[in-house]
Amino acid sequence: MIDKLVAKIQKTNAPIVVGLDPMLAYVPDHIKEAAYREHGETLKGAAEAIWEFNRRIVDAVADLIPAVKPQIAMYEQFGIEGLIAFQKTVSYCKSKDLVVIGDVKRGDIGSTSAAYAAGHLGHVEVGGNVYAPFDEDFITVNPYLGTDGIKPFTDICKKENKGLFILVKTSNPSSGEFQDRLVDGRPLYELVADMVNQWGADLTGSCGYSAVGAVVGATYPEIGKVLRKVMPKSYILVPGYGAQGGKGADLAHYFNEDGLGAIVNSSRGIIAAYKQEAYASFGAEHFEEASRQAVLDMIADIDGALKAAK
Amino acid sequence: MIDKLVAKIQKTNAPIVVGLDPMLAYVPDHIKEAAYREHGETLKGAAEAIWEFNRRIVDAVADLIPAVKPQIAMYEQFGIEGLIAFQKTVSYCKSKDLVVIGDVKRGDIGSTSAAYAAGHLGHVEVGGNVYAPFDEDFITVNPYLGTDGIKPFTDICKKENKGLFILVKTSNPSSGEFQDRLVDGRPLYELVADMVNQWGADLTGSCGYSAVGAVVGATYPEIGKVLRKVMPKSYILVPGYGAQGGKGADLAHYFNEDGLGAIVNSSRGIIAAYKQEAYASFGAEHFEEASRQAVLDMIADIDGALKAAK
Repeated sequence: MIDKLVAKIQKTNAPIVVGLDPMLAYVPDHIKEAAYREHGETLKGAAEAIWEFNRRIVDAVADLIPAVKPQIAMYEQFGIEGLIAFQKTVSYCKSKDLVVIGDVKRGDIGSTSAAYAAGHLGHVEVGGNVYAPFDEDFITVNPYLGTDGIKPFTDICKKENKGLFILVKTSNPSSGEFQDRLVDGRPLYELVADMVNQWGADLTGSCGYSAVGAVVGATYPEIGKVLRKVMPKSYILVPGYGAQGGKGADLAHYFNEDGLGAIVNSSRGIIAAYKQEAYASFGAEHFEEASRQAVLDMIADIDGALKAAK
Repeated sequence: MIDKLVAKIQKTNAPIVVGLDPMLAYVPDHIKEAAYREHGETLKGAAEAIWEFNRRIVDAVADLIPAVKPQIAMYEQFGIEGLIAFQKTVSYCKSKDLVVIGDVKRGDIGSTSAAYAAGHLGHVEVGGNVYAPFDEDFITVNPYLGTDGIKPFTDICKKENKGLFILVKTSNPSSGEFQDRLVDGRPLYELVADMVNQWGADLTGSCGYSAVGAVVGATYPEIGKVLRKVMPKSYILVPGYGAQGGKGADLAHYFNEDGLGAIVNSSRGIIAAYKQEAYASFGAEHFEEASRQAVLDMIADIDGALKAAK
């Protein structure tokens, strides 16, 4: 799957991922009203509104991008109906040949991680039948429990040709509270990065990158520069661009000299573009066109930053 | 909610929680066959089997115990249908007046943690209506992202009278890989424990304990002894008893001198008791009675250990 991701990044010339994190507040009124007319102001109504919102954005941007990253919390907050919208979103994006990164940040003791791995990346057996319940291509995983909490995920990646992004240095303001603490003179995030190398060592694709990648926030570019060198074979998923404060110029350090090695996420900045001054002229009625323009602008911003850094 | 948990522990004289982590392999054939007859060997069939398995165990043990801890991964692996079984299990246990600890180990950046907190502990608004999608009483939370990833959960706990158990030292073999690393001469788990105190400081119930508790594995009793003192006002949720190797005699250190302060989880040891030699005479047909006997034996084991330690 890492080979597919890299091939799609090269084909689109767009090392970006659109975060499908649909807060109800981002969904234009005409979409919400249509959903509520059919299903009432219910959890199903909310779920249908975010699903329709997603579908229109995906239709508007799918030809420009390699991948999407639905954040499951935004669906899970609406309970079962929300999770049905998550599943429909994953499935629809795959039908559009997009690589789907499930931002689920799961992680537990071995036997429990095995269940998450089966449900999100693999298969479960029921009697004589086999099912792939959520079937994302990649998921994000929390490393706090160590190797035996990660191994069930890497085992499934090997078997099913899937991939992971392990949280190494997250984009939020207080990520340093534990992640930056020095252990034997090195920050904890570097120790986690060492383990990412180890966990992914026998999962290298023909593209030269491992199926085990890392999450490193755009909001910490100096740390990104270090971690790029610590994990030369890991793709870095970079959240925090745009709304969280990360800028294109900060991003060059997350890439390798081959121009590959990083994929930058933007969520609000794309899906709620029509709410920004720069795209307000599209109007809420044409929110998907605002999202398309925001994608084009993001690609140009990152392309410019990469060219300037050469 | 911490007051309710403590009151129920005192009333039952049982500082234990039954982990409702139903692997299909634990479910007796007669339960599976009945579910498959009605729904086929499908995800719905699997989900109905684990729901019926849960229901019978809960009916058999509810009068003996204060709380249950469904592990969401075991349901999530069966996709939407599995999550419906999770929701039914939560709701059924609450109707039996059991305290429900959702073992979900969520945790993300602030805005995303807020969505998880709303979905699992709080409410979401859809138009003019308000829903409580999963509505557990407590959930487990991963601390790797630091304070701004925790605050949305503590905010909801305050507002909705709910509680948390933060992962401090997990029960699995490789938990020490990151959690035990020394920072300024102290293991990382102690730094997390310091933050648990801080996060829970203004959430103390009338019982004297905070609504922000901690997870500390039964498999590390010497660490449990230290962490008990570091977090005097936190309830400690202790996984790893029984199948994972923790013994009753190891558990005394997790309790305070008031006889309170810890709640010990057993999952497999209770719900799959009929598969153990000690309870094999019950037979698969009477699995729920085997579970009841295993609960009685666990209560006696812990009670004996607490008395011996006095």
